[in-house]
Amino acid sequence: MEGKNILRYIFAVLLISNSAAAADHHKADVPHHPLDPLTIREMNNVYKAIKSLFKKSAYTVHSLVLEEPDKAVVLRWRRGDPLPCREASVIARAAGKNYLLTVDVESGAVVQHDTSHNSGFPMVTLEDMRSVIKAPQASARFNRTIVARGVDPRDVVCMPFSPGWFGEAEEGRRLVKLECFIINETANFYMRPIEGLIVLTDLDTFKVVKIVDKGKHIPIPKGAGTDYRLSALNGPIIKLPNPVSMEQPNGPNFMIENKHLIKWANWEFHLKPDPRAGVVISQAKIRDPDTGVLRNVMYQGFASEMFVPYMDPEEAWYFKTYMDAGEYGLGLQALGLDPLNDCPRNAKYMNAVFAAADGRPYVRENVVCLFERYAGHREPVCRRRNEIREARPKVTLVARIIASFGNYDYIVDWEFHADGLIHVKVALTGIVIVKGTSYVNMNGVKENETLYGTILSDNIIGVVHDHYINFYLDMDIDGQDNSFMNVHLKREYTNDKSPRKSFMNVHKTVAKTEKDAQIKLSLYDPSEFHVINPNMRTKVGNHVGYKVVPAGTAASLLDSEDPPQKRSSFTNNQIWATRYDKSERWAGGLFAYQSNGEDSLQVWSNKDRDIENKDIVLWYTLGFHHVPCQEDFPIMPSVSSGFDLKPVNFFERNPILKVAPYVENELPVCKAAASA
Amino acid sequence: MEGKNILRYIFAVLLISNSAAAADHHKADVPHHPLDPLTIREMNNVYKAIKSLFKKSAYTVHSLVLEEPDKAVVLRWRRGDPLPCREASVIARAAGKNYLLTVDVESGAVVQHDTSHNSGFPMVTLEDMRSVIKAPQASARFNRTIVARGVDPRDVVCMPFSPGWFGEAEEGRRLVKLECFIINETANFYMRPIEGLIVLTDLDTFKVVKIVDKGKHIPIPKGAGTDYRLSALNGPIIKLPNPVSMEQPNGPNFMIENKHLIKWANWEFHLKPDPRAGVVISQAKIRDPDTGVLRNVMYQGFASEMFVPYMDPEEAWYFKTYMDAGEYGLGLQALGLDPLNDCPRNAKYMNAVFAAADGRPYVRENVVCLFERYAGHREPVCRRRNEIREARPKVTLVARIIASFGNYDYIVDWEFHADGLIHVKVALTGIVIVKGTSYVNMNGVKENETLYGTILSDNIIGVVHDHYINFYLDMDIDGQDNSFMNVHLKREYTNDKSPRKSFMNVHKTVAKTEKDAQIKLSLYDPSEFHVINPNMRTKVGNHVGYKVVPAGTAASLLDSEDPPQKRSSFTNNQIWATRYDKSERWAGGLFAYQSNGEDSLQVWSNKDRDIENKDIVLWYTLGFHHVPCQEDFPIMPSVSSGFDLKPVNFFERNPILKVAPYVENELPVCKAAASA
Repeated sequence: MEGKNILRYIFAVLLISNSAAAADHHKADVPHHPLDPLTIREMNNVYKAIKSLFKKSAYTVHSLVLEEPDKAVVLRWRRGDPLPCREASVIARAAGKNYLLTVDVESGAVVQHDTSHNSGFPMVTLEDMRSVIKAPQASARFNRTIVARGVDPRDVVCMPFSPGWFGEAEEGRRLVKLECFIINETANFYMRPIEGLIVLTDLDTFKVVKIVDKGKHIPIPKGAGTDYRLSALNGPIIKLPNPVSMEQPNGPNFMIENKHLIKWANWEFHLKPDPRAGVVISQAKIRDPDTGVLRNVMYQGFASEMFVPYMDPEEAWYFKTYMDAGEYGLGLQALGLDPLNDCPRNAKYMNAVFAAADGRPYVRENVVCLFERYAGHREPVCRRRNEIREARPKVTLVARIIASFGNYDYIVDWEFHADGLIHVKVALTGIVIVKGTSYVNMNGVKENETLYGTILSDNIIGVVHDHYINFYLDMDIDGQDNSFMNVHLKREYTNDKSPRKSFMNVHKTVAKTEKDAQIKLSLYDPSEFHVINPNMRTKVGNHVGYKVVPAGTAASLLDSEDPPQKRSSFTNNQIWATRYDKSERWAGGLFAYQSNGEDSLQVWSNKDRDIENKDIVLWYTLGFHHVPCQEDFPIMPSVSSGFDLKPVNFFERNPILKVAPYVENELPVCKAAASA
Repeated sequence: MEGKNILRYIFAVLLISNSAAAADHHKADVPHHPLDPLTIREMNNVYKAIKSLFKKSAYTVHSLVLEEPDKAVVLRWRRGDPLPCREASVIARAAGKNYLLTVDVESGAVVQHDTSHNSGFPMVTLEDMRSVIKAPQASARFNRTIVARGVDPRDVVCMPFSPGWFGEAEEGRRLVKLECFIINETANFYMRPIEGLIVLTDLDTFKVVKIVDKGKHIPIPKGAGTDYRLSALNGPIIKLPNPVSMEQPNGPNFMIENKHLIKWANWEFHLKPDPRAGVVISQAKIRDPDTGVLRNVMYQGFASEMFVPYMDPEEAWYFKTYMDAGEYGLGLQALGLDPLNDCPRNAKYMNAVFAAADGRPYVRENVVCLFERYAGHREPVCRRRNEIREARPKVTLVARIIASFGNYDYIVDWEFHADGLIHVKVALTGIVIVKGTSYVNMNGVKENETLYGTILSDNIIGVVHDHYINFYLDMDIDGQDNSFMNVHLKREYTNDKSPRKSFMNVHKTVAKTEKDAQIKLSLYDPSEFHVINPNMRTKVGNHVGYKVVPAGTAASLLDSEDPPQKRSSFTNNQIWATRYDKSERWAGGLFAYQSNGEDSLQVWSNKDRDIENKDIVLWYTLGFHHVPCQEDFPIMPSVSSGFDLKPVNFFERNPILKVAPYVENELPVCKAAASA
């Protein structure tokens, strides 16, 4: 099996063909905003510069994105001003070295040239993946091993998995571990692993380094029962004959200006797809209902890193400790969204222009969708006192991306509310990656035997794992100089005069340095965490601010000295606040692939810089423990959680009251489809 | 100001007029299911029996609902069988005694007669509230006090607040504390309290017992700026000109059989409004996708009790420690739902038949709504591997009630998913109850002074408080005999051969007795909590079960010996499992009003009964700390959280796969409204 044929079995994104029509459509793009992504024309300029830099020697471009101008420059810029100098940030590899380049997009001049980053590697490219999946079959030893397992080599497809980092022995060369699956008898080949077989391969040479096969005694799980299509299932189906849909026949209430500036209700923000972060929200501002002025809330927010450690120490599993954002890229692995399946009918879509491994731009269509969501009730609910029935539409604006890392999908939603709240939600779904086993029933398992997971079906174990997604949130509440405030809720005792013995009181402490802002949440010692502007107060004298409202919390149970935990030490705390530094964007490090944790949020925070009344960045990590269950088989239902950024004494009063109600005769007029 | 006029300022529910047309519509109701609520005919029979029991002496009916047949009887009953004996459970007061009666609805015979409950009182009736609000104005001393505060008595409306319980001195008589507000200059009179003035009143005699006024130095907050209607606000408004709506022109996919049996997708359950619990879900069953058999999940689930302690020990505030379900009734305070404002356009509504204080039935219209909700994406999302694009509609069924306790509203949603999940969500909203203050700005507040809250506007403090809502969840997983299993996630260390140092392993422990199932959640020592049927296994040998997935957790910081905490000791743990006992339904006690905690979940659980492989009840408490902020003024945005009951090895595989996809040309055809 060769070429494109094989791709449909691997990371779904490898299947996407680049749309020439879409590329044509974007050819004339020009940037309008300092943060607008590089255009096709700009990327082509940079591509020429890279080619000429490396002359005729081989190179790979792992990232080619806008080098964002300094924050001060962006903040100074006003619409109508000339754009600040456009530069590209290029991460490339050549002759075994990591290149970090800054290139002027007009002249092609290399403004900065840095090869000093020796630890870790950049994201794998789609081209890396396309090439490496064929490596095992080129190895005679691999083919012998396969045959010894009783498998027809033509039925085998291998998938590349990042190898993690487990000490110095593995440093210095780019590696990948391939695991192989049997693709016949099922459309869901993930359920048919050749267990215990791991093919360590060099990602630069695509040569097999080592083959480990510790699964000879483990049968290949059967294909029967693993398909998830309705046509493959037996027995009665459930029909919901009357469709329900979100409908907005007049089109959306948001505007997209110059392709990236979103204006909706009282919000305005810049949105761009990003190969690593998925989407980047910049300069989120909300209009003050009293003054009409657009006020700064967040300079930039995006998914910074992920961590998905599997909890099985055996040879074929111990290394599965993925940092998907830095290893694979949330944007690079984002599929074009499928209308109606991925986003509701009233959604609008945005394309991305990404760079291929040679540096040439291509267009990925429909990577982001934007839509208004109706909550199912209106606000404020409490309005019937005094015979008032007036209510506001509870409509929000959602920006969505879906990244698909092989078997797994992450739906990332940024949801803006007219009451000032930003809700960031991640839904996990997809196909649980499973382990082959000789067991077909729990009754065969010995008393003290550890399976590292749950038997999901005959010969299939769903291995226990965690998911963490860290968000970078550069809050700028009414300006750059902000403070991080712990609003501590503490039990206090009353004096003897009160019939009450105790009450909960509020104690506010402003973090002086970064270590004060390394926050481990506690149910029994609770706090709110505010980013305030200490230089601004409301009319009644409260500091203006936003709070992060945690949810979806989990703490990593790995030992802090365990290599995967050192690399993903951003999970050591649920919340952090650090001093703004342009170079500190990726919580697991710029070069996360095989990284050792030296460049990470924990290390930056341990510098313990002064953060009071300074430009600070807030970091929040969503976490999920996942003990698989049979309902996750053969494809799991989505599980989601999200946190809020919520105005707290930012406004003088509830800003949703300024949203005009709408009445029944303004609603859409719908009838059933003719076919129904 | 008298009679109906005054009511519009008080608990909104007092305004609802009983619909004669609706009563007519329900006159012919007959019960079809052993758990169907009492019909008008049945209640009228009971009313006659009560009247005759108390002869000509005064009595008040505080609750008149179906005395549910024993669980064994209900479980034995099959459709077509004659209904088991219909009995009413009556809680009444007469001559200063609590009566707990069981009355045969046909013969009117009093089957059980119990006056032994000396501690605590039943829910207040709407008639209690209607009468007591006039009590202060009948007191010359009150009027003198009001005038001394410079207030025109005609502008004053007093609201009744439950007094809590603070020791023996307050026992033995039904009390209420009234707090008064100035109703002029604003439609939002809650923002104009006469601070510090508390009128302690006897709820049986409606006589003022004591007047405390410690707020003479505190001005009445101004009305200006407190209105929340658009017409009352200055400056530009935000218009979202293109309405978005949930549309289902063919009508819903659910059926309501015999008024209370809901059938939707693979679910079937009985739903009834209840004056105390709001809604009661009974006999929730889901159809097994493999066998087609309806399987038991939950015998009964409902909101059992609430706890809303305010965190201010001063005279006018210390007692504000509401147990709204047991003191006021989630159903009794539920407003008829407002189509489009409270529920989407595709909702259907259900009426309630409740009893008035004399025992006569009346109809409360549209207390519950049922609708299908579309999530905005489909499931499974991960389906594009191997070029599969098939996805299922992510549509759920929501049953909603909105209870309005004076200023505050609670939206309680029971949401059923076709993948087997039940999501229970509570949204808090409404008007924060505020405290008058002499401060108009934080800069006047002394360094070490405690405000017990946040200055929200001139002379207004939003007092810090908590909200807890406890749910009774009588899980019956494939039968009555179940166990409560702690699926503990623990760090373990690998042997020296693995490059990994550590992993997270799963240890399952079945609770032997109730004390084993008093669960305090911990982020750093996590567990899953399953209710399993130890007598049933899946094909691969896992115990069938459901897990409770916590969210919206908060722990009460009150001292465990503080009177309010003793009464609401159900907040001592987030999760409990107890032995099923028909009499243990209300976590804060049957007679929660002025209760002392002797009859409560903590006390029952401390019996430490055997719960392994027994009929058990799961209890879960949602919790919220609320430090008010200016955005909560003059009416707050809704805040919500919910927990899940989720199948875990209950099914052999993901049951949503049996739901047929629908395709684009089956969706509604909508156009913009003519007026748009």
